[in-house]
Amino acid sequence: MERIYLDANATTPLAPAALAAMMPYFSEHFGNPSSQHAFGSAPAKALRRARGQVAALLGAAREDEILFTSGGTEANATAIRAALAADPNRREIITSTVEHPAVLACVDALERDEGVIVHRIGVDAEGRLDLDAYRAALSEDVALVTLMWANNESGTIFPIEGLAEWAHEVGALFHTDAVQAAGKLPLDLAAAGVDMASVSAHKIHGPKGVGALYIRHGTRFAPLIWGGKQERGRRAGTENIPGIVGFGAAAEMADPAGAAQLAALRDHLETEITKAVPKVRVLGDRRDRLPNTSLMAFEFVEAEAVLMMLDRAGIAASSGSACSSGMIEPSHVLRAMDVPFTAAHGAIRISLTRETTRAQIDRVIAELPPVVARLREMSPFWTQVVEQGEAVS
Amino acid sequence: MERIYLDANATTPLAPAALAAMMPYFSEHFGNPSSQHAFGSAPAKALRRARGQVAALLGAAREDEILFTSGGTEANATAIRAALAADPNRREIITSTVEHPAVLACVDALERDEGVIVHRIGVDAEGRLDLDAYRAALSEDVALVTLMWANNESGTIFPIEGLAEWAHEVGALFHTDAVQAAGKLPLDLAAAGVDMASVSAHKIHGPKGVGALYIRHGTRFAPLIWGGKQERGRRAGTENIPGIVGFGAAAEMADPAGAAQLAALRDHLETEITKAVPKVRVLGDRRDRLPNTSLMAFEFVEAEAVLMMLDRAGIAASSGSACSSGMIEPSHVLRAMDVPFTAAHGAIRISLTRETTRAQIDRVIAELPPVVARLREMSPFWTQVVEQGEAVS
Repeated sequence: MERIYLDANATTPLAPAALAAMMPYFSEHFGNPSSQHAFGSAPAKALRRARGQVAALLGAAREDEILFTSGGTEANATAIRAALAADPNRREIITSTVEHPAVLACVDALERDEGVIVHRIGVDAEGRLDLDAYRAALSEDVALVTLMWANNESGTIFPIEGLAEWAHEVGALFHTDAVQAAGKLPLDLAAAGVDMASVSAHKIHGPKGVGALYIRHGTRFAPLIWGGKQERGRRAGTENIPGIVGFGAAAEMADPAGAAQLAALRDHLETEITKAVPKVRVLGDRRDRLPNTSLMAFEFVEAEAVLMMLDRAGIAASSGSACSSGMIEPSHVLRAMDVPFTAAHGAIRISLTRETTRAQIDRVIAELPPVVARLREMSPFWTQVVEQGEAVS
Repeated sequence: MERIYLDANATTPLAPAALAAMMPYFSEHFGNPSSQHAFGSAPAKALRRARGQVAALLGAAREDEILFTSGGTEANATAIRAALAADPNRREIITSTVEHPAVLACVDALERDEGVIVHRIGVDAEGRLDLDAYRAALSEDVALVTLMWANNESGTIFPIEGLAEWAHEVGALFHTDAVQAAGKLPLDLAAAGVDMASVSAHKIHGPKGVGALYIRHGTRFAPLIWGGKQERGRRAGTENIPGIVGFGAAAEMADPAGAAQLAALRDHLETEITKAVPKVRVLGDRRDRLPNTSLMAFEFVEAEAVLMMLDRAGIAASSGSACSSGMIEPSHVLRAMDVPFTAAHGAIRISLTRETTRAQIDRVIAELPPVVARLREMSPFWTQVVEQGEAVS
């Protein structure tokens, strides 16, 4: 049985070409790039090259705007703390209710332990930010606005350029968690006007354990991890050269324009599933969504049961984000979108990789509807719906 | 020309067997271990195995005492901030003047930005901690004592068990930066009584970008990096599975007893060099030093010039730590040991890997003395010493 991986928003396989690029740096060019002797020179050169590759993917104006981290989560934590340190007179943060836990748990801790005031802006049923509430929360007490570029569950894209402009009007820094956007959408951070942006290698077929924080030149900054002078004194610790090289290679191979073509496959999936299955809702912003992401809510089934049966059929998908897997409650994103209880429990996220084929999607179209039907047959609620003669279309 | 790598305390080559262990987890078993579907199970299993391997190397009592991080620097930062968060009534930290920058820059920042009181305990000429000063600094205001197990430059070993006991007498937490000790000395953290200990994979022939913080069961803790529920909620971010697997494999292959045999090679080096070169001092604690580390100070030469000439001869060594390379001033460790100015500027660190051979050391014994002699001939100070007829022995 060919196993079909449709959980790209959780992680992606490392591209063989990225691994090939990494290989010389494990045991041969293993030196510390800070070393003055011969062993340091190839790693130092590789580090510079990778920085340029990541800068190019993000549309950074300067290579030194790229700070390598251990991943998207560390990048988010670094950005949030740096913004608070930049101006001790500003003690408020604006974020949204649908951010990744890497942001939400961080601001929760700051609120609880350090008295920071956090505004969590809500979203509508399609996951779109409440712009009025955002505007109302902005003030000169706000140190940082941190809003994700694209949502990992719903795929909904926030209008980052405009949101950043509003933040700057009150002198706040603007950070975006661009972990899901990078590689899937064309990014031009220099033009977008954001001050900081987080990205992760393993979401774009790079290695796990490496990410980056874009920091616009001139942005006030303080490190999260102090120590040696690596990364121009902004992130200490011996550089993960093989990981960084793999990130650079993956960044160079990322093809946001090609990713856009995934939308056709994704739309085909949604069209056929909604034809074949009654009472299913396609969630997320229908006009501005990640091209690879489909979040569908099947009423009156438990998503975990659907996933288990799909898994037995060789299809890997997700409910909510991987980070919250195992929870029985609908994810915070589904709750924020006010998805009705009976549908939220049956929400399945299918996220395509750039390797996903039409044949794989057709297998999902063949396998998923009978799985949902079988589970519904076992559900007393569903039986009731059918008996009450509700429109089952 | 065979290049000879004698800078193990900066970094080590990844062991081929560790790389082999990592390989399946890049592109094949690439899944997110948090995933409920089939792609998550092999990575989750590999994570558990690696945790056991690292726990065994460190002599941890329980596998869940091992928290994987992105390296030793992050582990140090996590430990220090966790200790401060654990008891807000304790606002003092005790450390030493010879710690790694990962500790010193972190406590400097806490002192400057958050009003933490920092006691920096000095050392004697052999790099041994001033025990009287340490005892005097201990009080019930101390949140944390953080002292390194072994020094990266001098190799001097601190008597960690006793130091931890004293800290506990006043209710302070005890953390040790064991980055240089792990793999080179037999560690039994369960018996040593430390509360937290930092280690790094790439110093023991594991991959860069991964390390661990040992946290004794029951120790009060707060994360540095918040977010998803990875690492039992203590360190968020998708786990770097290949890196962690490589760390586990390297930990299993580490042979502290074998490392002890390096001392004979190191002693041979020092004996022959001190015979062949006048006015050289062997630094560090002569009775309790890392077996692989030699710090020799050649009076009246510039270490950077020696290193450059050695490098041309295919021999890679270091002056001070790699992190501070490029600085013209003697390292903070040499200054703390009060090494006289004329000697401190000529201090060369030679740190052996477990692959270092007798033939390689003999090449150093052949190459190094003429390099020092040639440089001294060009030094006006040296000429003066010779003219004044000082004992050149």
